[in-house]
Order: sequence, then structure tokens, then C-alpha cells
Amino acid sequence: METRHVPLILVSHLVNIRYLTGFTGSAGMALMGLRQGILWVDPRYTLQAREQAEGWEVIEEKKGILKGVAAWLRKEGIRDVAIEASSLTFAQFECLRSETGNTLSMKPAGDLIEDLRVVKDRGEIEAIRGAGKVTAEAFSELLPYIRPGVVERDLATEIEYRMRKKGAEGAAFESIVASGPRSAYPHARPSSKALQESELVIFDLGAILAGYAADMTRTVFLGEPNRRVRELYSAVLKAQSGAIRSVENGAAAGEVDSSARRILAKHRLARYFTHSTGHGVGLEIHERPRLGKGETTCLRSGSVVTVEPGVYLEGFGGVRIEDTVLVGPQGPEVLTPASKECWVIS
Amino acid sequence: METRHVPLILVSHLVNIRYLTGFTGSAGMALMGLRQGILWVDPRYTLQAREQAEGWEVIEEKKGILKGVAAWLRKEGIRDVAIEASSLTFAQFECLRSETGNTLSMKPAGDLIEDLRVVKDRGEIEAIRGAGKVTAEAFSELLPYIRPGVVERDLATEIEYRMRKKGAEGAAFESIVASGPRSAYPHARPSSKALQESELVIFDLGAILAGYAADMTRTVFLGEPNRRVRELYSAVLKAQSGAIRSVENGAAAGEVDSSARRILAKHRLARYFTHSTGHGVGLEIHERPRLGKGETTCLRSGSVVTVEPGVYLEGFGGVRIEDTVLVGPQGPEVLTPASKECWVIS
Repeated sequence: METRHVPLILVSHLVNIRYLTGFTGSAGMALMGLRQGILWVDPRYTLQAREQAEGWEVIEEKKGILKGVAAWLRKEGIRDVAIEASSLTFAQFECLRSETGNTLSMKPAGDLIEDLRVVKDRGEIEAIRGAGKVTAEAFSELLPYIRPGVVERDLATEIEYRMRKKGAEGAAFESIVASGPRSAYPHARPSSKALQESELVIFDLGAILAGYAADMTRTVFLGEPNRRVRELYSAVLKAQSGAIRSVENGAAAGEVDSSARRILAKHRLARYFTHSTGHGVGLEIHERPRLGKGETTCLRSGSVVTVEPGVYLEGFGGVRIEDTVLVGPQGPEVLTPASKECWVIS
Repeated sequence: METRHVPLILVSHLVNIRYLTGFTGSAGMALMGLRQGILWVDPRYTLQAREQAEGWEVIEEKKGILKGVAAWLRKEGIRDVAIEASSLTFAQFECLRSETGNTLSMKPAGDLIEDLRVVKDRGEIEAIRGAGKVTAEAFSELLPYIRPGVVERDLATEIEYRMRKKGAEGAAFESIVASGPRSAYPHARPSSKALQESELVIFDLGAILAGYAADMTRTVFLGEPNRRVRELYSAVLKAQSGAIRSVENGAAAGEVDSSARRILAKHRLARYFTHSTGHGVGLEIHERPRLGKGETTCLRSGSVVTVEPGVYLEGFGGVRIEDTVLVGPQGPEVLTPASKECWVIS
């Protein structure tokens, strides 16, 4: 905060509040930059906040958290705070302004806390490792049920059920099960379509454990794949393996992306790869860094990112393979250990 | 909009966009008040928006939705729009301001769309009725599994699994399963605690169907309840029935709340009823109107509300009974038809 000349920062994004304080409630505001940080909550959460937010002063507000924050700032004579402009609403901004008698200067803090979250500590990595394990196991258990005639939405329901039975708090996002031509849509939602013989099927799933997410995609084929399908799968798998190998401390994020693209280009498939190669994962399913074209940010040991090249042929189908990968001190470590070899289901 | 002197309204709250246009994507902005409304989306959603948002002009923005909105407003010479201040972030507000060259006046629109959403049309009511049916059936199916030794979290997992198997898109909120002393916390999350003999257990659950939520709570007792427990349950059930009877077109929202409180007061339990009696339900799980103390808003035919009195005795346990109720033309209609009589599980 010193190097960015930020005096006090009012943290309103709940994920950032959780990251800083440990508090997991659904409402609150935190002020950071004092000797002791302050966390404001409503009466529903007072006990919970005192338990979770070790080292933070917890203030209970019965008549509105923001009014409490404003009153405190006024009382302390503070005229300058940094705000999280991407989460604070305009109504909250106006409330703070009027409740402090228009004396408070509020400047955007930038993405200070998001930047801190990029490098994970040991506890965070263990949580993601656990989430990755649950995700991979749930998918492996599902394999015997992936058959022609089964409905996409029912498979999605089974995925989430199995992740929870294995201890997940829930799914990090709505699982994708997209079969046949629908597998050509990167963001397809599970539908009432039944799987058919000779179709590609994409599964994109991720569990949450201790608040942290994992993210994994596997593609399978029902029946005996022809040469074209084998080539597609093999090219994407090579692109993914190559990109994973380039995940290391100090590598530019864009370099991971171009590794994947180079390999797909050799198979004349680069133009069917229509999204970026990956993204950070943690308390949120999409975090920094973005592994996209030309991104110059350097990967740092302790970051966790997805590597997920895919090719999408309209009217035909798609193949995407994704793992959650730790930037380890000795190189990349895959945290979603489900097989990518058993993709032919016959 | 005319009576409120609102010229054009920029709708940024996604639920309101869905309500107005039918578009269900995860990003977009809508402008209302023109002969033909406009919906801005990013390229992921162009096709979907054109299919779903009948009668709306869909504009695809490759380089940021807000920049597109700002450019359009500037081109049309519009200097005055109403905004949804509770959903537009400060960063979005600043972007609109700077991209329009600081010529745009933006005033809060109030809760215009939220007010429209209070009275549901036939299709909306059918969706909530369907969600209520799925919710009630999932709970009834669960009854045989509610036994000493079963873990709260596993029951919550089963609830959500069953709701989805019956066609729900998912759970409207994290299901509550709170047993023994934990049932005294109105907002308890399901834990790894096992149910025990002679405990009260609160189940609070709700399915989403076609975007619309239902909300239902049932309380059961494991074993043979003593007199105190029977009195508690019976008082809450009477309070709930009485409050439901007062749900009718033209009744003040606060009157439903005081019906429940009056009955609990007769049993000397009013002071253990620590929250309001209910809330509207629809595209969101908490909507208007609020059925709380002194609320003067009148219920209107076509509104859907919860009626959920509860009593919470610290260290002992709680009882809450909740239904989703339609304000029908001929009086109240319960949309969550699960038994409240089979509450003793022995």
C-alpha cells in the first residue's frame, strides 16, 4: 500500500474481505491500513466475525453497515480513503459521501487485494489441491454412467452430487455437459439433450473446498472415433501438455498461451481455438493472471492457473482439455489428476 | 415511468434485464424508454440474446458493453439517463461519465423495475408453483432418511440432488439443515454434525424452475417430543396458519406480520421470534414486499410471498415453518404443499 500511496482502503468486495480477515459472511465492510483493521458486520454475523476475523476489530452495526463506516470515519476525522470501485455500487458511494457530510475524498484503489491474491500460501494451495482431487474423483466415478441415451442435465446433477458427497461445499460454477454439435459451444449449459453414439462430449467441472475452487475439463467420445476425431483430440492434448510444460516461475503468461497456439497451428487448428488458454483460480473461479495472447505478466511460484486449450468446429463438435496447475518451485504441478487417456467410451 | 418523470433508464441489474427482456446471459445492459428497447451484449451472447429478447434491438459489443452504451448515448445526443444505483458500480458510473465526455447526467431511478416485479403474471406464477412442487416433493422424499446419525451436510446434499432430479435448475439458496441447539440459529449453515435422538431439526430449502424460486421450511423432531416441544411446534404452526389467512389482496404487509406475532404472544413466545414474517419471492429469493413490523405496503393479487414465523431458544433449539404463498384473487394459496403434520419422526 505504501508504494501505491494508498492511505486507508475500504474493502467492499466480499471475496477480498474473506481473503484478508477470514470472515465468510454474506455482508460486511473492512477498513485496512490502520494498526488494527476494522470489520463492520450486521448483528447476524457478530459472533461469527469475532471467531473468524482474528486480529481484526469487529464492529456490529444495527442500523446499516455503511452508515456505521461513515460515522466512524467522520469521528476519526479521516478525509481520504481508497475504495474498490469495481464492487462499491454508486448508491453505496453516494451514501458514504452524504453520511460523511461531503467531506470524504474517495479514490479508486485499483486492484490491490486482487494482486495480493495472485500468489497463494501453503494453506490456500492445500485447499485447491483438495478441490482438484474431489473434482477429478467425481469425474472418474462418473465415467461408467457416460453412455448413449443419458441426458446432459442428469450427468451435471450427478457430478455436483458426487463432488458434495466427497466433501465439496458445492460446485464452483454450473457444470458443463455438452454433447455432439453442442460441444462446439465453449459456454454451453447442460440441456435436456441425450448423449448419442459417435458424439464428442465435453465435461467442465470444479469443486469448492474451504472456499477455494478447482477447474477441470475432459472430453470423451462415445464409440469408435474416426481419424479426424483422433487427430483433433491428439492435437488438443499435445497443445495442453506443451502449454503445461511452459507454466513456470518467471514465464510470461502470454508465453503459455502461445505454446498452446503454436502446437495447434502445426495441426492447422489454431483458428478454431477461440478463447484464451487459461486464468488464475482461487477464492474465485476466474482470477488473475489471465493466460491470453500477449499478456506480459510473469507467472510466480505459488500461483494457480488453468491450462485449457480447445478447438470448436461448428456443426461438428469440440474438444477441450483443462487442468488446474500450480506454478511450483520445481515447475508445473497438475492439481486435477483425472485421466486424459481414457477418452474413448465404447 | 412517466409518473416518475424518468426519461430513459439504463438497466444494469441482471435480474431486471432478464425480467424485462427474457435474456438470461451473465453480462449485458439494457436501455428502456425508447420505442424499442436496446440490449447490449458481448459476442458470447449475441445469438442467445437475439433468440430470447423478443422485440428488443440487440447490439453486440466486442470492446466492452459500457463503452458501447456510452458511444450510443453520445451519438444520439442523449444527456439524461436514470441509473440503477444499487447495481451500477462506481467504476461503471465513472466509465459512462468519461466515455460520454462528462456530458451525461445520471440520476438514480429508484426501484422502478423491482416495483414492477412485485405482481407476477400467469407464467411467473406457474413457474413458482412448479418450483414449490419440486421443493415439497424433494422434502417428502427425504423424510425416510431423517434419522439419528445422519449428518446435516449429507441431508442438504440429498435435498439439492432430489430437487435437480425433479427438474429444478438448482437450489435457490444453500439449503439449511440445522439440528439440536443449532436449530436456534435462523441462518445456520449445514455442518458435519450428526442428528441425534430428541432433537429439533430445521430444513429450509427452495428450488429454482424457469428462473423462479420457491422457499419452504419444515421442522421435525426425532423421537417422542415432550410437552414443551409440542407447545412450541403447535404455537408456531398456529401463528403460521393465522398469518397465511391474513394474506389477501389489499392487506397491509405489516398486518400479516402482526397476525403471526399476536398468536405467538398468546403463547408467551413473541420475544423469541427475532426476524420478520416473510418476503416476496420470484426471480430472486428475497424480493418485495417485506412482511415486517409496521410495513404499510398493501399486498396485491398476483404477489407471491413467504410466511415463516419461527421461535429460537438459545441452547435448546428452534422451530420455523414456512410456505411460499400466492396472494390469489380468492385469498391465499400455498405453493409449497408439504405436510406440516408429520413432524414427529420416531
